[in-house]
Amino acid sequence: MRAFDEAAAGLADLGRRAHARGWALGTSGNFSAVVAGQPLRLAITRSGVDKGRLGAEHILEVDDRGQVTGGTGRPSAETAIHLAVVAARGAGAVAHTHSLWSTLLSDAHAAEGGLAIEGYEMLKGLSGVETHAHREWLPIVENVQDWERETPALRCTLEAHPQAHAFLIRRHGLYTWGRDLDEAARHLEVLEFLLEAVGRLSWPR
Amino acid sequence: MRAFDEAAAGLADLGRRAHARGWALGTSGNFSAVVAGQPLRLAITRSGVDKGRLGAEHILEVDDRGQVTGGTGRPSAETAIHLAVVAARGAGAVAHTHSLWSTLLSDAHAAEGGLAIEGYEMLKGLSGVETHAHREWLPIVENVQDWERETPALRCTLEAHPQAHAFLIRRHGLYTWGRDLDEAARHLEVLEFLLEAVGRLSWPR
Amino acid sequence: MRAFDEAAAGLADLGRRAHARGWALGTSGNFSAVVAGQPLRLAITRSGVDKGRLGAEHILEVDDRGQVTGGTGRPSAETAIHLAVVAARGAGAVAHTHSLWSTLLSDAHAAEGGLAIEGYEMLKGLSGVETHAHREWLPIVENVQDWERETPALRCTLEAHPQAHAFLIRRHGLYTWGRDLDEAARHLEVLEFLLEAVGRLSWPR
Amino acid sequence: MRAFDEAAAGLADLGRRAHARGWALGTSGNFSAVVAGQPLRLAITRSGVDKGRLGAEHILEVDDRGQVTGGTGRPSAETAIHLAVVAARGAGAVAHTHSLWSTLLSDAHAAEGGLAIEGYEMLKGLSGVETHAHREWLPIVENVQDWERETPALRCTLEAHPQAHAFLIRRHGLYTWGRDLDEAARHLEVLEFLLEAVGRLSWPR
Repeated sequence: MRAFDEAAAGLADLGRRAHARGWALGTSGNFSAVVAGQPLRLAITRSGVDKGRLGAEHILEVDDRGQVTGGTGRPSAETAIHLAVVAARGAGAVAHTHSLWSTLLSDAHAAEGGLAIEGYEMLKGLSGVETHAHREWLPIVENVQDWERETPALRCTLEAHPQAHAFLIRRHGLYTWGRDLDEAARHLEVLEFLLEAVGRLSWPR
Repeated sequence: MRAFDEAAAGLADLGRRAHARGWALGTSGNFSAVVAGQPLRLAITRSGVDKGRLGAEHILEVDDRGQVTGGTGRPSAETAIHLAVVAARGAGAVAHTHSLWSTLLSDAHAAEGGLAIEGYEMLKGLSGVETHAHREWLPIVENVQDWERETPALRCTLEAHPQAHAFLIRRHGLYTWGRDLDEAARHLEVLEFLLEAVGRLSWPR
Repeated sequence: MRAFDEAAAGLADLGRRAHARGWALGTSGNFSAVVAGQPLRLAITRSGVDKGRLGAEHILEVDDRGQVTGGTGRPSAETAIHLAVVAARGAGAVAHTHSLWSTLLSDAHAAEGGLAIEGYEMLKGLSGVETHAHREWLPIVENVQDWERETPALRCTLEAHPQAHAFLIRRHGLYTWGRDLDEAARHLEVLEFLLEAVGRLSWPR
Repeated sequence: MRAFDEAAAGLADLGRRAHARGWALGTSGNFSAVVAGQPLRLAITRSGVDKGRLGAEHILEVDDRGQVTGGTGRPSAETAIHLAVVAARGAGAVAHTHSLWSTLLSDAHAAEGGLAIEGYEMLKGLSGVETHAHREWLPIVENVQDWERETPALRCTLEAHPQAHAFLIRRHGLYTWGRDLDEAARHLEVLEFLLEAVGRLSWPR
């Protein structure tokens, strides 16, 4: 249980930080980290927890079908998204926020199917990006109620954009990930910064 | 007095959090929680307290007519609103903030008598809302000086909008509530987020 | 020295809070409190101190001509303004911030000689204001280098607007005061909130 | 090693403060301080560290060619810029942030080659500035990948603007400096405040 405990502490810390910045208000947002690979075990935030008070005791363990294998409570309703990202990207950690700018921009750019961010130094904070000239395309997917049913479509989107470090859900928020929790946290801060920059630059539309 | 002590500690915590986010500056805002039902006893913030330093010692107990039954000091001038909400909704806790966006939007939409918020995932943070397609109508009431006299009108508004999770007072702020303090706190964060999103989207008007 | 110690601790706390909100960045802002009346002794922040680290040891004591009577270091270059406010209003404490909105609005409304704020509930946080229908007129004075020489003009402005709870210095910031430190702190939060509301409402101009 | 330890603690504190304000998200930003002059030894943040958790253990020591002389890890990729500033200005400390407004304004004003800030009281927080009538010209340089190769051009820019307290890198951020760490920190807060003021004043463009 060593890996789980470490992941749980790290997830709680990341959740509290996201809440402090206003990116996970009202029990929104969820965070996960892989704690074992064969078979898969994912540590993930319990549903309905105030992220400003998130503690390791609010983290569950689920298997590759989202069934709870450790801890008590209901896993996040979006566990299927986390599992799809882990499967498609080999991610070690996934961060999901409901921030102001991801909410507004995912709606404003929905018709184009995504949002391009290009030419900012901050892009180099994304894994594998070596130059600010990089063009990051964030796919935007429609918001739905049943993410388990939507998993195949989500996998298609991830496969169609193999370079993407994140995607947006329309009027809902941001999903990003990383090799481990530190990288996912870095991607989160990088992308939230860039979304605010792009948002302020293009507002009022 | 166990229930009162727990409520007082929770109210102080919620007040400090609201102040930290800039939603209750300058001693504005007030917060209450039901501690007994038969007869009603309501724990509520004392008038004129700096919410950044709010402690359990600043919480009073009042009865269903707003008379102080415990603690020292004057209850908030808006105690009548809290009592009306508790009576009309069966709420266990009420939160009132003077935030920037509730102040501006309550004025901008006053002529329509309310503000609609629709299609955001964050809406699912409101009790009983199962889909982001939900349309939340926040009634807007005029600001007055004497809320005790206004109580019947306020009850009418609450009855006319039985689904509303909150209402706005023009150029004044937001009132929301919940079954208990945690739910009221969640509704507060959800609505403040949504008001900022709607505000930024529609500005400049 | 009891009164001085208490004032110094209170001033340091107020300064750190203003810095945290971004109202006193880069050693800007200064804060004072009367500790004795006959003869006058004023506790005031030392010049050039980072308000994020403000401690009681950074507070000096000056007399009614701004001469240091206790502590080491140079008093703020704007000590003359604090003394003028204390003399004209009988204030027990004075708070001065360099906030974003006081800087921008003091310039935008300079030609009118002041800024009116009217009809907001938050106005009732100002001492003696009993209704949100209140109209607060904040005089705007030009920024100068030598405030000692400017003291007579400043006194005239204060006398010409006996109801004003504050004034702005063009492209410089806000001055407000109160009967004691708590009231000055409340006026500061109330006015910074109102300036942001008015600023966002009128932007872009 | 006394000077290094003191510098390392001060740099870690400055980095955490910049991160808290959102000026150094996603491991962006870097900070340095001179700890010895003959030969030069510079304490500087290690590459890729989360500034929200920056500790003294994340600070390296480098010589005047950027070679590591103490500590473990890779120095920031922009060490050459820090060294160029120290050489050209005799600075004792350098602060670099990736803030929202420095990112946006460095792009908006790139065609003019710089950004003028004039007439604000806050300018007096810059070393040697005695009047708010001061006009600060912040040169803007293009963003590049290889700063070591760019060092001569950067030195030319610094020599061409001997009065400048800072410069911007296009779509990248702000560089400022000071005689010591406290002065660099003060310049950072002063300039970030002024950039936000100028940015909000001129937006939408």
